[in-house]
Amino acid sequence: MTTNSQVTVLGLGEMGSALARTLVDRGYRTTVWNRTATKAAPLAEAGATVAATALEAVAASPLVIICLLDSAAVETVLATIEPSVSGKVLVNVTSGSPGQARANADWARLRGAQYLDGGIMGDPPYVGTPNVTFSFSGDRDAFEAHEPTLRELGEIAYYGDDAGLAAVEFLAQVAVGYEFLIGLLHTLNLVNAEGVDVAKFAQRVAASIGGYVPLVNAFGTAISNGEYAPDLGSLNVQAALMDDLISHRESLGIEAVRMREVKMLMDRRIADGHGDQGLSSLFELLKASGPTSPTSTSGSAHAEGIEDHGRTPSEPPH
Amino acid sequence: MTTNSQVTVLGLGEMGSALARTLVDRGYRTTVWNRTATKAAPLAEAGATVAATALEAVAASPLVIICLLDSAAVETVLATIEPSVSGKVLVNVTSGSPGQARANADWARLRGAQYLDGGIMGDPPYVGTPNVTFSFSGDRDAFEAHEPTLRELGEIAYYGDDAGLAAVEFLAQVAVGYEFLIGLLHTLNLVNAEGVDVAKFAQRVAASIGGYVPLVNAFGTAISNGEYAPDLGSLNVQAALMDDLISHRESLGIEAVRMREVKMLMDRRIADGHGDQGLSSLFELLKASGPTSPTSTSGSAHAEGIEDHGRTPSEPPH
Ligand SMILES: NC(=O)c1ccc[n+]([C@@H]2O[C@H](COP(=O)([O-])OP(=O)(O)OC[C@H]3O[C@@H](n4cnc5c(N)ncnc54)[C@H](OP(=O)(O)O)[C@@H]3O)[C@@H](O)[C@H]2O)c1
Ligand SMILES: NC(=O)c1ccc[n+]([C@@H]2O[C@H](COP(=O)([O-])OP(=O)(O)OC[C@H]3O[C@@H](n4cnc5c(N)ncnc54)[C@H](OP(=O)(O)O)[C@@H]3O)[C@@H](O)[C@H]2O)c1
Repeated sequence: MTTNSQVTVLGLGEMGSALARTLVDRGYRTTVWNRTATKAAPLAEAGATVAATALEAVAASPLVIICLLDSAAVETVLATIEPSVSGKVLVNVTSGSPGQARANADWARLRGAQYLDGGIMGDPPYVGTPNVTFSFSGDRDAFEAHEPTLRELGEIAYYGDDAGLAAVEFLAQVAVGYEFLIGLLHTLNLVNAEGVDVAKFAQRVAASIGGYVPLVNAFGTAISNGEYAPDLGSLNVQAALMDDLISHRESLGIEAVRMREVKMLMDRRIADGHGDQGLSSLFELLKASGPTSPTSTSGSAHAEGIEDHGRTPSEPPH
Repeated sequence: MTTNSQVTVLGLGEMGSALARTLVDRGYRTTVWNRTATKAAPLAEAGATVAATALEAVAASPLVIICLLDSAAVETVLATIEPSVSGKVLVNVTSGSPGQARANADWARLRGAQYLDGGIMGDPPYVGTPNVTFSFSGDRDAFEAHEPTLRELGEIAYYGDDAGLAAVEFLAQVAVGYEFLIGLLHTLNLVNAEGVDVAKFAQRVAASIGGYVPLVNAFGTAISNGEYAPDLGSLNVQAALMDDLISHRESLGIEAVRMREVKMLMDRRIADGHGDQGLSSLFELLKASGPTSPTSTSGSAHAEGIEDHGRTPSEPPH
């Protein structure tokens, strides 16, 4: 076995345990540590070595995977492992912000370690299958050296040297999911208030989701090119419906914050002479509202093209 | 030919023209009318009879399909056709509210006409294919008598005698789509501000959409049963990420209204002792906020089970 076959996992919650378990099962010499020691028992039984401290665990392997609750936990644990990180590759797959990822990368570099940040989209039981996707960014050499190991965990994609890019991707994918799902919950509240069977309505929504695939691709292309076709019909026709939609929600006490926003943006686009364009054209109005948005829609201040290291992700972000 | 083979279409915009064209092509004796007469020319060429007035057009057929811009236009046109509606079946597929649909049904009944309300989900070019779905509700006899004709136009589903139910379904499906898409636009604004290629990000979102299908079904079931599994991980774990997500958006000037709402609702569920449940459990908090929501999650005040008259819809609502 090469040294690459030795891996340490810090954090044995739902997700960390699934990562460690997969590595053990695939034949890696796996050292584990968890703040609450009892959670290591099932892994010890499976063949992992349990370290008494995080510091000891880090000393055991060239590659250290960190999977804790949040960035605050990561900060706490990093402080305790400082004496042994030199020469190590730290792969932090704890969900966090791009800023935190960049700070961690700086912290590691100053101490002679290489740093990769990662986001995990998928459920713990699916770790080790293509139904879990990992976004990585940070030290390219470290990524390339350990790619085969990381690939054991699921689909992987590398977003570039800037350690913050994986978190950008992760937070954006998560937000797309939450926007859809919180909106869905409000609308399930609406149909419930109207006496419609919620489970059956959800089934009909689920059955129509595939129809959004070409639409989402078309939105991306339209925004990149600045050419907005009447995607869901023209704004003139779409806007005509919004007052009915909003007042229906209000009559039932269902919130309509997004629907009022959509109507307001549609009206502004129409007033600007773009009533023949589609919903994607509202992007032009959002762009202007962001104080730090670049003027170009295709600016690439610090991002590189994504390099795909696996199949297309097929699971929603978690 | 039976009298059922005679159809009138009022309104020859994008959608009305597509409906009329499909009926002509399928061999129906089709009479058309449009406020702006010039729009009837292509249909006349295809074989439709052009009526000089809406009143004349209605007199020509037992079945009258109305497809105008909005409810206000429908009201205007209904007033002009009043003398000839007795004994007719009016099928109004103009997008509108449940309340307007019920008012139209009353108007028709008082004048000896039968009324069906409908919503159209899909693009005009796909009328006549399974990629366009029609929701209908209202007079059941009228629906059954004209089902074969309506089925020529696309997939059809009948939601019950209450004329408002098709609009409930339509407005709810439209809202699900708008919630998803306006949220997506804000997040495309985020990735753009971060220098990420918007079109490529959209492709990655599109590639992961299929993963939401089981999730949406699970949300519906969870809400119906009041049993909330940790769908995207527990709320405890999900909530730990939200501050990072929100502050990242704020740092870039990207709006975060929904994300703040999600965090606030998660915190309330956790405080209530439900941190082990999933995102779907937030429904319990929304329910309480609706002044007219029923206490039961499966109440069916005036809805009937949907009766499917075709394949599962496969297009997003428009
Ligand atoms: N679960 C999912 O579905 C899922 C999906 C995608 C991504 N993720 C991400 O994966 C990460 C881990 O999630 P999880 O589901 O494994 O969470 P979890 O089951 O709640 O486990 C949390 C882990 O963090 C440790 N921890 C928390 N605070 C700590 C501190 N101050 N010092 C040391 N250790 C601390 C816990 O140790 P103790 O055992 O001692 O409490 C435990 O090992 C999160 O960032 C999450 O967003 C999870
Ligand atoms: N287009 C789509 O993608 C789509 C998809 C699903 C559902 N729908 C629904 O289908 C309906 C029609 O949409 P569309 O795309 O056909 O719209 P459109 O192309 O704008 O056509 C609007 C029609 O309404 C007529 N009209 C408007 N105001 C009128 C008035 N006061 N009196 C008489 N006629 C009036 C117009 O007549 P003039 O020609 O004289 O202006 C025209 O025939 C809408 O309710 C829309 O929500 C459309």
